[in-house]
Amino acid sequence: MQPLAPNSTIGILGGGQLARMMALAASNLGFRVHIYAPEKDSPAFDVTRYSTCAAYDDELQLAKFAAVVDVITYEFENIPLSTVEFLDALTPVHPKPSALKIAQDRILEKTFAQTQGLTPPKFAAINTANDFAPALSQVGLPAVLKTTRFGYDGKGQRKINVAEDLATAFAALNNVPCILEAFIPFEAEVSMIAARDMNGHVKCYDLVENIHEHHILARSIVPSQYAQALEKLAQKAAEDLLHGFNYVGIMAIEFFAVRGNNNALSLYFNEIAPRVHNSGHWTQTATLTCQFEQHMRAIAGWPLGDTTRFAAIEMHNILGATAQDSQKFAALPNTKLTLYGKTKAVEGRKMGHFTTLINK
Amino acid sequence: MQPLAPNSTIGILGGGQLARMMALAASNLGFRVHIYAPEKDSPAFDVTRYSTCAAYDDELQLAKFAAVVDVITYEFENIPLSTVEFLDALTPVHPKPSALKIAQDRILEKTFAQTQGLTPPKFAAINTANDFAPALSQVGLPAVLKTTRFGYDGKGQRKINVAEDLATAFAALNNVPCILEAFIPFEAEVSMIAARDMNGHVKCYDLVENIHEHHILARSIVPSQYAQALEKLAQKAAEDLLHGFNYVGIMAIEFFAVRGNNNALSLYFNEIAPRVHNSGHWTQTATLTCQFEQHMRAIAGWPLGDTTRFAAIEMHNILGATAQDSQKFAALPNTKLTLYGKTKAVEGRKMGHFTTLINK
Repeated sequence: MQPLAPNSTIGILGGGQLARMMALAASNLGFRVHIYAPEKDSPAFDVTRYSTCAAYDDELQLAKFAAVVDVITYEFENIPLSTVEFLDALTPVHPKPSALKIAQDRILEKTFAQTQGLTPPKFAAINTANDFAPALSQVGLPAVLKTTRFGYDGKGQRKINVAEDLATAFAALNNVPCILEAFIPFEAEVSMIAARDMNGHVKCYDLVENIHEHHILARSIVPSQYAQALEKLAQKAAEDLLHGFNYVGIMAIEFFAVRGNNNALSLYFNEIAPRVHNSGHWTQTATLTCQFEQHMRAIAGWPLGDTTRFAAIEMHNILGATAQDSQKFAALPNTKLTLYGKTKAVEGRKMGHFTTLINK
Repeated sequence: MQPLAPNSTIGILGGGQLARMMALAASNLGFRVHIYAPEKDSPAFDVTRYSTCAAYDDELQLAKFAAVVDVITYEFENIPLSTVEFLDALTPVHPKPSALKIAQDRILEKTFAQTQGLTPPKFAAINTANDFAPALSQVGLPAVLKTTRFGYDGKGQRKINVAEDLATAFAALNNVPCILEAFIPFEAEVSMIAARDMNGHVKCYDLVENIHEHHILARSIVPSQYAQALEKLAQKAAEDLLHGFNYVGIMAIEFFAVRGNNNALSLYFNEIAPRVHNSGHWTQTATLTCQFEQHMRAIAGWPLGDTTRFAAIEMHNILGATAQDSQKFAALPNTKLTLYGKTKAVEGRKMGHFTTLINK
């Protein structure tokens, strides 16, 4: 593909904050943006002239959308695969449906990671009660039961401490296809944000340390105290995955950092997000090319930008009604504030974030 | 005024790159943006859902615009004063019409600067040929004849080397009201970008050194080699002007740096721009709060953000057809690229800019 001219139009599926920030980054490179989202009050609609509010299975609207954009991407892995496949037949979609398909299914995802040399926790599929005993014997206890599809921010998971928990948990998850994973007694959660361009060049950002509260990302810290021990391993894993997928765009890879008996640290693969990611928001403040711009560059066939971090930084999510206190956040020292323009502040909803320079 | 809530709507008069970058900065704080501009292909229209394409004297459209926005600002001092006064009676406009009126007229502007303690070059008004002799005697030679209104990027100016040049120059400028200014043999042009909030707090960015080519800004360098000698003087001048105007928002003040016989540097006032300014684009890369966000914070009644510069930086304008070489600019090392989404590349037209980190 020839690099897209700056006046080309980027199509984005999804209208949340990730789409909004991709749109702003695309605009900054001179691109036009067309947002396609089903929800009328999508915050990304506000930041572009061009949008379609329609369902993901509305083939007439999808075809019209494909006809007026030059390339398509998505903000979320739970966009229906059939939507992305339909569009990709009309106008190129990146990342490709083949990568999305794997990212949408925890069994496919962990299997693929294994084939690329990464180490996921032990896992087994659970489709019926007949799978309980063999899965428990393969995975061991404690474990975590997760739906294979549509989980995010801790939704669709149950901890399994004793074998008897499994039937209850499976029922609580409505007996949908699940994965049983060994519970990893991790010391920290870290992530690697990396991009691959159309010529196969990969650029990684610095390793991020993530602190979750109630299963939602609360803070990201860069540089991580685990960088020296784990950054090169995480980079290698990211490169192997990106090349394995023949991927174009930003990918986030989440890992568990585990301390062994010998005090050495090792890296377990948790999951990927085939998109820009909350744990990469710090790149807006501390690099020349934020993850949103990097994703636009990759899918437009442009060269990747500089990912060098020039400051130590901590990112804080702003959740729910705390966003009403915008003046407090706006007055924080050494801080850059980003708000997403969402009108309803539901508890736990991501309303914005701020990044603060730290002395390290 | 109470601080605007993040979902409020900012109205912007003008649809060029400055309006576009203000809109992107406002979106980043969660605001909505409504662009009002007469030109159909205004690049700022592309980055918001809300816009009006109408003339600046269309009072019906202006009133409708005022009714749907919470505060109004403008990207350019040549918006008609009557437009801004009409709107300000309906919905608050910042900076106020009183400041705009002075900034639109070089005689009022230099007179006001003098009353605030700044030093402009000697100047005199020229309205008819009868003013030639007294003006020349007051100002001396060489001098520069400029239209009092509507000049920018060197448009509407003529150098006067000998007295006989004056009649020709005045005729070439269509005998409109002019100002004759002493020609200042400056060593450099420097500018100060500063903001004042609704509570009267002022924050300055670092002094900028500007290099013009063919009367158009080519490059800005920060820190300037003149900072040690002139930065405190320029800050004091900016504070005096902003307080004098009872100003709200970003103002750019342009100065000549002149080296005297004793080798000491002094600062002559050249002009102000009551708006975000090309010589402040570097703040997008090297500070936590760029000038566009700072302007939005000020007019929204928010506290001003941090203006500390955390890198040495050089900004280059991308003019005319060179913008077609976007892939070259996109691949520059240590560089952040911004393109304005303009479709027509006329010679000398500002199409984008890039900022490069430098070692100082």
